[in-house]
Amino acid sequence: MSAPRIVTTAAELRAATEGARSGGRTVGFVPTMGFLHEGHRALMAAARADCDLVVVSIFVNPLQFGAGEDLAGYPRDLERDLAACAAEGVDLVLHPSVEEMYPRPMVTTVTVAGITERLCGASRPGHFAGVATVVAKLFNIVGPCRAYFGKKDYQQVAVVRAMVEDLAIPVEVVARPTVREDDGLARSSRNTYLDEAARRDAVALSRAIRATTEAVRGGRRDRAELERDLEVALDAAPGVVREYAEVLRGRDLVPTGTIEVGEEYVVAVAARVGAARLIDNATFTVAPGGAVHVDLGVLGDGRAFDGA
Amino acid sequence: MSAPRIVTTAAELRAATEGARSGGRTVGFVPTMGFLHEGHRALMAAARADCDLVVVSIFVNPLQFGAGEDLAGYPRDLERDLAACAAEGVDLVLHPSVEEMYPRPMVTTVTVAGITERLCGASRPGHFAGVATVVAKLFNIVGPCRAYFGKKDYQQVAVVRAMVEDLAIPVEVVARPTVREDDGLARSSRNTYLDEAARRDAVALSRAIRATTEAVRGGRRDRAELERDLEVALDAAPGVVREYAEVLRGRDLVPTGTIEVGEEYVVAVAARVGAARLIDNATFTVAPGGAVHVDLGVLGDGRAFDGA
Repeated sequence: MSAPRIVTTAAELRAATEGARSGGRTVGFVPTMGFLHEGHRALMAAARADCDLVVVSIFVNPLQFGAGEDLAGYPRDLERDLAACAAEGVDLVLHPSVEEMYPRPMVTTVTVAGITERLCGASRPGHFAGVATVVAKLFNIVGPCRAYFGKKDYQQVAVVRAMVEDLAIPVEVVARPTVREDDGLARSSRNTYLDEAARRDAVALSRAIRATTEAVRGGRRDRAELERDLEVALDAAPGVVREYAEVLRGRDLVPTGTIEVGEEYVVAVAARVGAARLIDNATFTVAPGGAVHVDLGVLGDGRAFDGA
Repeated sequence: MSAPRIVTTAAELRAATEGARSGGRTVGFVPTMGFLHEGHRALMAAARADCDLVVVSIFVNPLQFGAGEDLAGYPRDLERDLAACAAEGVDLVLHPSVEEMYPRPMVTTVTVAGITERLCGASRPGHFAGVATVVAKLFNIVGPCRAYFGKKDYQQVAVVRAMVEDLAIPVEVVARPTVREDDGLARSSRNTYLDEAARRDAVALSRAIRATTEAVRGGRRDRAELERDLEVALDAAPGVVREYAEVLRGRDLVPTGTIEVGEEYVVAVAARVGAARLIDNATFTVAPGGAVHVDLGVLGDGRAFDGA
């Protein structure tokens, strides 16, 4: 596997992707903040399978960190990231400096209303404006045909989809399943903040989520009740400080009275565990016939995670 | 001159411009709200001279109208507009419905801070967010190499430039001189609101602006004094109700103490005249040697307007 070409400026990256597109080649794009894990690798592999030219960006975006958040300490390991990109057959890595991305203070902001009111939008004011703005900018630089995001960041995917639709951005947004450790912990760059004890405690998030989807499988349809039990499960877990625990209709991220048939719902949690703030989610849909489809994500080898 | 092709959907327009771009042809774009006048025609002519494929959009954008503004009554004349496009050799006209542009309530907004605080930004809250959002969307649909705007909307051009730079939108923004009637009135679709008396009164705007640039030519350098005299001149004009009259540094649209050498300044006014809200401006720069360069725009035939 040859090493990807690394570029640090928008101009170089644009020249490369413009050449590819004008030659009729498709461009796949995986935006990341680096410290790549199996979740990112699954996105790269999907892009590699779909597209002629695969671009990965590695950029820790200051705009999406609030005051007191972990911008300065966000984990970085460029050498290991480039090895992961090489192993997945990535063609181009965009690794710009903050000065390259933001040569002057930004005065332009892309905001998405409504779906950013709850979950991480409520606890991290300005976060999704920072995400939408940098993703819009990266899309303009890369000009991808398809862009790949992980479902672990469910609300982020919803924000990007809304922006793409509203602004008619010519890109197909592809969302891929959350990748989990064998015990269920969702892969995240921030898992590196977990010490041994916190790592054990952290499994409580996926367990609480799975208990909720199992309850739906068992026939429960009262949304508020499902949400309350989710909260109780998280609050009972040692070492876990709940930030939110919600069961929301996926398309608009609002609570509904009961679970509506044919609608995707997301079971979403955020919590402090040791030194880390972790998020996790799963989705379910109750089909008209009553069958329940659950997406809890996958293991590192791509098999569905069933929590057993 | 053959008639332009008229398309009403983003998909049709995109297919046409993608074909052109992949064939190596340059795409020029003139976004308009229709009711085209000499100012628009000068933009089309510039695009025609520069680019292989010329696209004009005609769309009265509800997002940029505030409550109580003239959205419903905004003048429209598609037949005459298409004749103007044909005469200027336009290739494609995008004329979408509001439902095509906004099939669901928009949740995404592009905002530009700072330069939108004064002038029309102060008196029309939300206006420039509506402009930035629709222009971002039109750019995504059309994918132009160059986009053409009139300097009469000086603040609008500044907003679009800031957005393009901040979001790395791959388009060159071209600003063209304000086109004026022989007596100095800036061409505007809204001039159609002027009855005979108001039409006569309306010349006060360009006269007051020219008096200010003449004062600068005469050696005055106190910005606040220039601004005060501009206000006084407007307020003395019969039939004119001043909304604002400001002399601001162009690059950030803020007032400075004295006029800084080497910086472009804008003399900008807005006023109600009869049934119309009109805006107008001119720019000047004091060169290091003391020479004053003034841009008051042009007449319909392209010659510089000197107000004489």
